[in-house]
Amino acid sequence: MPLNIKLTLSYLGTAYSGWQRSIEVVLRQALERILQHPVKLQAASRTDAGVHAKGQVVNFLMNENRSLSRLLHSLNGLLPKDICVLSAQEMQGDFHPTLDCMKKEYMYSICNGPVQLPFFKDISWHFPYPLDLEKMKAAASHLLGRHDFSAFCNERRLWDRDPICELESIAIIPGPPLQIAVTGDHFLYKMMRNLAGTLAYAGCGKLQPEDIPAILASKDRTRTGMTAPAHGLFLNRVFYPSLLKCIHECQPRP
Amino acid sequence: MPLNIKLTLSYLGTAYSGWQRSIEVVLRQALERILQHPVKLQAASRTDAGVHAKGQVVNFLMNENRSLSRLLHSLNGLLPKDICVLSAQEMQGDFHPTLDCMKKEYMYSICNGPVQLPFFKDISWHFPYPLDLEKMKAAASHLLGRHDFSAFCNERRLWDRDPICELESIAIIPGPPLQIAVTGDHFLYKMMRNLAGTLAYAGCGKLQPEDIPAILASKDRTRTGMTAPAHGLFLNRVFYPSLLKCIHECQPRP
Repeated sequence: MPLNIKLTLSYLGTAYSGWQRSIEVVLRQALERILQHPVKLQAASRTDAGVHAKGQVVNFLMNENRSLSRLLHSLNGLLPKDICVLSAQEMQGDFHPTLDCMKKEYMYSICNGPVQLPFFKDISWHFPYPLDLEKMKAAASHLLGRHDFSAFCNERRLWDRDPICELESIAIIPGPPLQIAVTGDHFLYKMMRNLAGTLAYAGCGKLQPEDIPAILASKDRTRTGMTAPAHGLFLNRVFYPSLLKCIHECQPRP
Repeated sequence: MPLNIKLTLSYLGTAYSGWQRSIEVVLRQALERILQHPVKLQAASRTDAGVHAKGQVVNFLMNENRSLSRLLHSLNGLLPKDICVLSAQEMQGDFHPTLDCMKKEYMYSICNGPVQLPFFKDISWHFPYPLDLEKMKAAASHLLGRHDFSAFCNERRLWDRDPICELESIAIIPGPPLQIAVTGDHFLYKMMRNLAGTLAYAGCGKLQPEDIPAILASKDRTRTGMTAPAHGLFLNRVFYPSLLKCIHECQPRP
């Protein structure tokens, strides 16, 4: 019986054209080189070009029982410095990173000030106009809970059939860089970047927090803020039900 | 009379071979293109290849009275994204960034854990063995104050004639990344990187905090820890006496 292996990854998306087209390829090639059999990877989130991850979750089937610790060590040795594996777990046979996902946390990072600080250039959106955090928080409060988020979706994809999402929390953390952390059960295509653009518009006065309910109800993409650029976005964490059984877990060693 | 202009800069040193050989050249060329006259730059610190700055201070003479605000705007427009000017000040005629410097703050950043996190790869030293912060603090306490730091200097340079330095503060800030912030009146060549290497050795047990006084007294470079790599080092801030008169100050605008 092949083993169902779950990996948790961190990557800097700057040099890649997204999960599906490049990061997935790099990771798969490294795994196939180590395991010497074809590997099919499934990921919790298909991050776009330039998007980063602090805790992407993927799985694959491993044909024979091998030391997870050695696998982890070999993988981190083969992978480029902008991708690393934080943990490997052997899961029950039916684990699926997307179907079993309960909720996800995304974080959007903004360098707010007249100049883009060099240290944040690849990991934040440079927004030069002053942002009022209280207004951003007021706008965020209207987005919490269950809503039809069609107005925040750029393009409906096959897997986005349900426009109803439930946002559990939105935290606005002063910076630098300013961070918007959102936890939700489900995110539509580019929804997180549209949420960030809309909250920035609310923060600088281009939108009023009270406009949000009408924008949600309109389902009209042209009424929200701009789609914030990809390089400010991070997939922070993917949550699974605690009853999902992990048979064996392994973290990297020095 | 030419005007004495002080600039405060931030840069990511990754792509450069140090202040003198590359960052200075890029900044000088941008200034000469804007001002249309030769410019001679002097910097508070000659940062090495790969070293970063959050507040490097430089000065130059400007032949005619120009709007500092427009100069700043043009400069930030011409400079690459990994170098930015945080402020421009017109100083009294005799201001000199090195000779007038009262003290400097350097910060050394360590990614402490089994794997180097992708987001810190260019801005921290990956140290895989567990570090005991209390031991690092104990070692740091022996380095505070006035000492002969010859043991922490790789190579004596012409401008390093005086090996006596006074360290005013050493803060060990848990991470990630772990940060070592040191303020002192004067730093010898590679001293900050040797301090970081020595504190890391104390943190992982390769040195005992109580060994520090004997190491200082020995003036023997081979008894300290390794020279920590350049890419974890930041020049954070340069301090000048408050009586140094700034005639006009300008910060970037959105």
